[in-house]
Amino acid sequence: MTKAQTFITLTYLIETAGSPEKLAAKIASDQSTGTFVPVPGETEELKNRVAARVVGLRPLPPAAHSSFPSEEAGPFNRAEADIAFPFDAIGTDLAALMTIAIGGVYSIKGFTGIRVIDMKLPEAFGRAWPGPQFGVEGSRKLTGIRGRPIIGTIIKPALGLRPHETAALVKEVIDADVDFVKDDEKLMSPAYSPLEDRVKAVMPLVLEREQKTGKKVMYAWGISATDPDDMMRNHDIVLKHGGNCAVININSIGFGAMSFLRKRSGLVLHAHRNGWDILTRHPGLGMDFKVWQQFWRLLGVDQFQINGIRVKYWEPDESFLASFKAVSAPLFSEADCPLPVVGSGQWGGQAPNTYNRTGKTVDLMYLCGGGIVSHPGGAGAGVKAVRQAWEAAVAGIPLETYAREHQELAQSIATFANGKGA
Amino acid sequence: MTKAQTFITLTYLIETAGSPEKLAAKIASDQSTGTFVPVPGETEELKNRVAARVVGLRPLPPAAHSSFPSEEAGPFNRAEADIAFPFDAIGTDLAALMTIAIGGVYSIKGFTGIRVIDMKLPEAFGRAWPGPQFGVEGSRKLTGIRGRPIIGTIIKPALGLRPHETAALVKEVIDADVDFVKDDEKLMSPAYSPLEDRVKAVMPLVLEREQKTGKKVMYAWGISATDPDDMMRNHDIVLKHGGNCAVININSIGFGAMSFLRKRSGLVLHAHRNGWDILTRHPGLGMDFKVWQQFWRLLGVDQFQINGIRVKYWEPDESFLASFKAVSAPLFSEADCPLPVVGSGQWGGQAPNTYNRTGKTVDLMYLCGGGIVSHPGGAGAGVKAVRQAWEAAVAGIPLETYAREHQELAQSIATFANGKGA
Repeated sequence: MTKAQTFITLTYLIETAGSPEKLAAKIASDQSTGTFVPVPGETEELKNRVAARVVGLRPLPPAAHSSFPSEEAGPFNRAEADIAFPFDAIGTDLAALMTIAIGGVYSIKGFTGIRVIDMKLPEAFGRAWPGPQFGVEGSRKLTGIRGRPIIGTIIKPALGLRPHETAALVKEVIDADVDFVKDDEKLMSPAYSPLEDRVKAVMPLVLEREQKTGKKVMYAWGISATDPDDMMRNHDIVLKHGGNCAVININSIGFGAMSFLRKRSGLVLHAHRNGWDILTRHPGLGMDFKVWQQFWRLLGVDQFQINGIRVKYWEPDESFLASFKAVSAPLFSEADCPLPVVGSGQWGGQAPNTYNRTGKTVDLMYLCGGGIVSHPGGAGAGVKAVRQAWEAAVAGIPLETYAREHQELAQSIATFANGKGA
Repeated sequence: MTKAQTFITLTYLIETAGSPEKLAAKIASDQSTGTFVPVPGETEELKNRVAARVVGLRPLPPAAHSSFPSEEAGPFNRAEADIAFPFDAIGTDLAALMTIAIGGVYSIKGFTGIRVIDMKLPEAFGRAWPGPQFGVEGSRKLTGIRGRPIIGTIIKPALGLRPHETAALVKEVIDADVDFVKDDEKLMSPAYSPLEDRVKAVMPLVLEREQKTGKKVMYAWGISATDPDDMMRNHDIVLKHGGNCAVININSIGFGAMSFLRKRSGLVLHAHRNGWDILTRHPGLGMDFKVWQQFWRLLGVDQFQINGIRVKYWEPDESFLASFKAVSAPLFSEADCPLPVVGSGQWGGQAPNTYNRTGKTVDLMYLCGGGIVSHPGGAGAGVKAVRQAWEAAVAGIPLETYAREHQELAQSIATFANGKGA
């Protein structure tokens, strides 16, 4: 061959009582040409065409405890291994990439820990997949909000409200001048609140407010459904009634449904990643968000929920900051960056840390549920307080100082700051 | 309400430095109505309608080590918790079920381990989803094989063969009188072997053999693709050229694509679960196959790969046996049972254990890759040896005894039995 080969490169964190080097070689062999005995067709020419190769191995200090339970005594050897898969062996299909370079790896014997920590894709992937239709710029344009985070809230309780009850809560938060409202990700189209009824009860309020004020609140509707045909019907209902955004439970519907939707979508696709935690929560197992998010961005996520500072969930701040950095880094061009959506247990209190630790950007959505609607002055005061917190953060003024002349922020601190200090 | 409520019941294995009881209550609250502060709409009436409830809590002996790394000293408290979700809060949508009862749970703070170990669905799920189109009976009918396992093989090497090279290997194994042949799950439609070219090179051999012998080998084609429209095109190619089966990488394509395909499929859907291992390999984390397989069976898997005895992968025999039991147990009726596909490092040697430990059934597919094609007497002898091993197993005759009068089995034992003893 005269033409230089192109490669897809994955990096694995390997942990084993044995040799990381041998296991790296085993990944490369098993995930391309291997089986447990030599087979007739495995020629040298074929190996050159498709065989994966270990192109880097960086030993790490051993671990005292194993990630998977092990009968071995330890310590457990660790290394980062870079493995290059010939592009021609996989192509640009994301299900093929997931199957070959990630899925199959988890089944290999001998690991006491295995985590996929990086993935570098060639340009062909950027050309093969649509990426976000709206992304950061589209979200700015549709909301009309520039120069500060888009401030959003979530309708709670998560489950159980009937359409007219939802509508009453929506009225309250849009009157509070929030920029974005979303269905809780757990709300899709249950019998007590079918999506169509909910849309019909709520969208007139959104459109009425738009007529009155010129500002269109972006409402993200829970259109996820197992059957892509059902999901498209949900999509069409939202579009028909003037909606412009949808919450998608990406991990529950899967790659195929996301691809199907993106090809036909007229809505901003706001991704909730529920279920993802089990793939990343153990630091020695699964995969980094940095890897996982690449698939979904190529498939077309416009807005990506990634937790935030001091969240109510398990995720530590450092992990959130790494996610923020990952989604804000172009894969192939700036247009493939989704809007980072910062949420979970948020109120204005986390604004300074969020701003200062994400490279002083305001290109994000800041989602507060209880942090807005449970403000003692009502949702309107809640929204004001969050905006004030961001003004202070960007100006580099401590929240307590800024709160002296901003009553809503002061109330917010008095209500929410215990243990979640500004 | 006078009508009795129907529930979806999940069982979680909870591990924590704190109180399992409190965490069980937190799952129930977070996954139905909860948020981090009380919100206005959360009335008692609403809670009655949708709130999940802890209906059982069985303490287990504490664990010395935590499943997720923990800064606490331990021991770690453990319990099994049954949580009942009102059916009306979720409905029959599988993406909603996954989001509410499983996905969101993994994000909750305070666990040092969390695993979903059981799921009981009400009858409505059986009516809402199609289940297998072919299953056990359809697989029997299409292959014409009754009274013994369907014996299959996998074309190896996994990647790299061009269509004419694949065809040469297929000719060899169908001449060997195997019942079933499949593409390796890693092979879909790469540039060096586009599915259509592969189908055109191979299907004439299958049809020719059928004409000659009256026996149609079932060939499972790797039709998986990220875009469901592409996958349907692949499906149509196979059907058009006389094929009757497809390998589906269920975990890589996701629920939506599986649902989309099943509605339109004329092929037996043979599921490979690559990637699943990371959800189940750590016994304190993720979910049992028993739970996960329910989703895919409802969606329509006809044949389900579940490893086997003494496999080349990480999975212990006990785990495989539990999987076999799970897929063989009706969810709502016998028709929703897929054919269990036993594979990975198999040759005749595991037949006695497989037979005796799965309730003495022959309703399974027995897949041997190298175990057939690397037989010293060639693939034909390999197939014979596997059949002989199963004859011996069913008759309760030790393989070594049966091998005295069955040369192919004897050769097979001599070749494969080291460390994989019969």
